[in-house]
Amino acid sequence: MPVVTMIGGGQLARMTHQAAIELGQCLRVLAASDADPAAQVSADVVLGSHDELDDLRRAAAGATALTFDHEGVPLQHLVALESEGVPVRPPSAALHFAQDKLAMRQRLRELGLPVPDFVDLSGDPVDARDELTAFGDAHDWQIVLKAVRGGYDGRGVWLLESRDEALAVVDGADDATQLMAEAKVPMRRELSALIARSPFGQGAAWPVVETIQRNGQCAVVLAPAPDLAPEVAERAQQMALRLADELGVVGVMAMELFETVDGELVVNELAMRPHNSGHWTMNGAVTSQFEQHLRAVLDYPLGATDLLAGPVVMANVLGAGEAPAMSMDERVHHLAARMPEAKIHLYGKGERPDRKIGHVNIVGAPGASFDEVRERAERAATWLATATWTDGWDEHGE
Amino acid sequence: MPVVTMIGGGQLARMTHQAAIELGQCLRVLAASDADPAAQVSADVVLGSHDELDDLRRAAAGATALTFDHEGVPLQHLVALESEGVPVRPPSAALHFAQDKLAMRQRLRELGLPVPDFVDLSGDPVDARDELTAFGDAHDWQIVLKAVRGGYDGRGVWLLESRDEALAVVDGADDATQLMAEAKVPMRRELSALIARSPFGQGAAWPVVETIQRNGQCAVVLAPAPDLAPEVAERAQQMALRLADELGVVGVMAMELFETVDGELVVNELAMRPHNSGHWTMNGAVTSQFEQHLRAVLDYPLGATDLLAGPVVMANVLGAGEAPAMSMDERVHHLAARMPEAKIHLYGKGERPDRKIGHVNIVGAPGASFDEVRERAERAATWLATATWTDGWDEHGE
Repeated sequence: MPVVTMIGGGQLARMTHQAAIELGQCLRVLAASDADPAAQVSADVVLGSHDELDDLRRAAAGATALTFDHEGVPLQHLVALESEGVPVRPPSAALHFAQDKLAMRQRLRELGLPVPDFVDLSGDPVDARDELTAFGDAHDWQIVLKAVRGGYDGRGVWLLESRDEALAVVDGADDATQLMAEAKVPMRRELSALIARSPFGQGAAWPVVETIQRNGQCAVVLAPAPDLAPEVAERAQQMALRLADELGVVGVMAMELFETVDGELVVNELAMRPHNSGHWTMNGAVTSQFEQHLRAVLDYPLGATDLLAGPVVMANVLGAGEAPAMSMDERVHHLAARMPEAKIHLYGKGERPDRKIGHVNIVGAPGASFDEVRERAERAATWLATATWTDGWDEHGE
Repeated sequence: MPVVTMIGGGQLARMTHQAAIELGQCLRVLAASDADPAAQVSADVVLGSHDELDDLRRAAAGATALTFDHEGVPLQHLVALESEGVPVRPPSAALHFAQDKLAMRQRLRELGLPVPDFVDLSGDPVDARDELTAFGDAHDWQIVLKAVRGGYDGRGVWLLESRDEALAVVDGADDATQLMAEAKVPMRRELSALIARSPFGQGAAWPVVETIQRNGQCAVVLAPAPDLAPEVAERAQQMALRLADELGVVGVMAMELFETVDGELVVNELAMRPHNSGHWTMNGAVTSQFEQHLRAVLDYPLGATDLLAGPVVMANVLGAGEAPAMSMDERVHHLAARMPEAKIHLYGKGERPDRKIGHVNIVGAPGASFDEVRERAERAATWLATATWTDGWDEHGE
C-alpha cells in the first residue's frame, strides 16, 4: 500500500494517521519530537525540522505523496523537492497562496471572487505609513492589520480602534514581518466551505458550516450552518471548488468566509490542509476530512461528503488559564458518565492557556435542534478544559 | 493518560489503536513481528510471544490494563500476572470460559441458559468412543464435533454425516486435543449479541445482529438483525449481559446465538474481546466496539450503543483462492470510484485464501432496505478480495 508523508506532527497529522490505518496504511510523519501528537501514535516517525531541506528529503524518501499539517514549510524547499521528483501535494504553486495572504487576495481579486478591500504595506516603510493612513481614512479606521505570512489562530492579526494604534503596529513590526491592511466587513457570521480536490481534478464539497470564534480562534462549529439559504451555501461551495481548481490545489481546502449583514459572501482566509472547521466530519459525515485528504493526495476517487445523521456541533477543548487539578483521565471519566454520546478527541498535548488540546463532537438525530446539540457540545468541551460544569454556553462570551 | 496493553498484534489490536488515538492514548501491543497488523501502525510495540510469561510481563509493565486480541494466552500465565498485581481484563477467571468450550457449556447450563445438548469426550479414549456412539445414536448423528480449546473461524469444528466419520475424528485426534460433541440445532439463522461490561459492573448492549457464515467463517453481518422480534432481541441482550455479569467479564463480549426454527435462542460461542460481528459499529453506531472495549477495560463509563443512522451491513474481505494480479491499492482506487460511500477497513495483511484481510461497511439511510445495502457491501468486499465485480451476493453460496 502507498506511504503518505505528512510534514508536521501535530493533531492534524495525528488524526490523519487514524484515517490511514483504515486504508491499510501507516502515516509517516516528520515531527520535531517523539512527544508530538502524531509521533506519539504512528509507527513511522522521522525526527527533524520542516525548515531543513535534508530532513524533508529524508521524510519524503519513497513516499507516494508528501503533504502538510501546517503551512510553515519554506516554499523554496518544496520547489526543490518538486524538482527532485517528490509529489508535493498541494504543490508549491498552490501552497504559495495559503502561505501568503497578500498573494492570495490579489489572486482572488483577479478571479473575480469577493474579498475585503485591502492594501499592501510590505514595501518601503515610509510609503507604508502613508498608504495605511490613506486606507484607514477611506475606511473610517474600520480596518484590520495582518501579517502577510505565518499568522494563525489570531496570531498575526491586529484588531484596531484608531489611526494611532495602526501606525504603532506598523512602526513596531520587525523588518522580517510584511504587513497588509484589510477593511473590516460588517458581518453576520463566519462560514467555512470545506472541499477536497484530487490531482485528477475531482472535487467534493461538504456542507458549508458556521464557525464561531473566541479570542480570534475557532471555538465552535455548527454543521451544516443553520438557516443558511441553499443558494448561498451552493455559491460558497462553488467559490471554493473553483478556486481550488484555478490554483491547482490538491487535498482538503478550507475557505473561510464572512457572511455579510447583506447576505453576501466575502473570502477571509484559506487553508490547504485538513482544518478545524472540518473536525465535525470525523463523526458526522460519511467521509471524514482526514480520510478525504489521504484520498485526494493519493489521487483516489473522493468519498461521499453527506451528513451521516442529523446536525453536528464541534467544540474545541481550549486549554484553561490554569490547568485543573483533576487529571485529564479523570475528566474524561466524568464526561463519559454524564454524556455517553459525546465523541471525545484528544491530541496528547500539554495544557496551556487557549491551546487546542482536543475537541468534542455531538451528532444530533435527524431533525434535532442546534441549540440542544450545541449546549451539550460546549458543556462537554468546557468540562474537559476546565473541570467545571457550565450551563451550556455564554452568548456574551463569543 | 492511561496505557492499555493488548496481547496480540492482529487486526483487532490495529482497530483498537485507532480508538485509543481519539482518547488521547497509544495502544501498546505485544506482537510477534513488526509486520503484524497492529505493529505496523502503533508507536508502542513490544515484540515477543504471548506464550512466554516474561514477554507478557514486559508488555504489561506500567500498563493501566492488560487485554487481548485473541484467546490464545495460556491461562496459567494470566493467573501469574494477576498474582503480581497486573489488571488483567477480562480476568483469567472469566477468560477461562472463552478458552474452554466445555467449561463454558457446563457453566451456561448451570445458569439455566439454553445450550445445545453436548457430551464431554475428553476422558479415556475408549470411554469416549462409547459416549460418542450413544450421543450420536440419540441424535440421529445430527451432531458436530468440536475441539474444546483453540478453534476459531471454522478450525477445530467437524461437521459430520455419519457414525464412521465421527469415530474417525476421535480416533485421529492427537493426545493434546480434547474433544466434545454437540447436537446440531435446527436453526433459522445465526445472531450475535454484542455487549460490554466494565469492572464497576456497568453493562451496555448494541442492537443484536444477524451473522452469515460461509465455510464456517463470518462473512456478512446485518445490523440490526432484520425482522427480529423485539422481545427476542431483548432476551438475547439480557442473556449476554447476565452471563457477563455472572462470569465477571470485563470488556467487549460477543455471544453467538442460533435462532432456531421455533424462534428460540441457543447459545453457540462466546468471545471476550472485540469481535467480527461488531465491526459494523465502527461506522454505524455512536460508539464503536473498539472504543467501548477501551472504556470498559479502563473502567470508564460506557458509550452510547445506538445506531447512528440506518441499517448497516458489514462484509468481510476474505482472501481469494489466488490473489488477483491487480494490486490492493488499485482495487481500492476502483472501489472508491464506484462506491464513494463504502467505508473500507484494511488490516495490512498478506493475501491468503479465506484469510480475513479487511472489511467494508455500508451505512444505509434511516429506513433503507437491507437488500440494497447488503448488495453494495458484498459487491464491494468481493471486489476487494477478487478484483471481480459481481451482482451482489449468491444466496446459494451461503
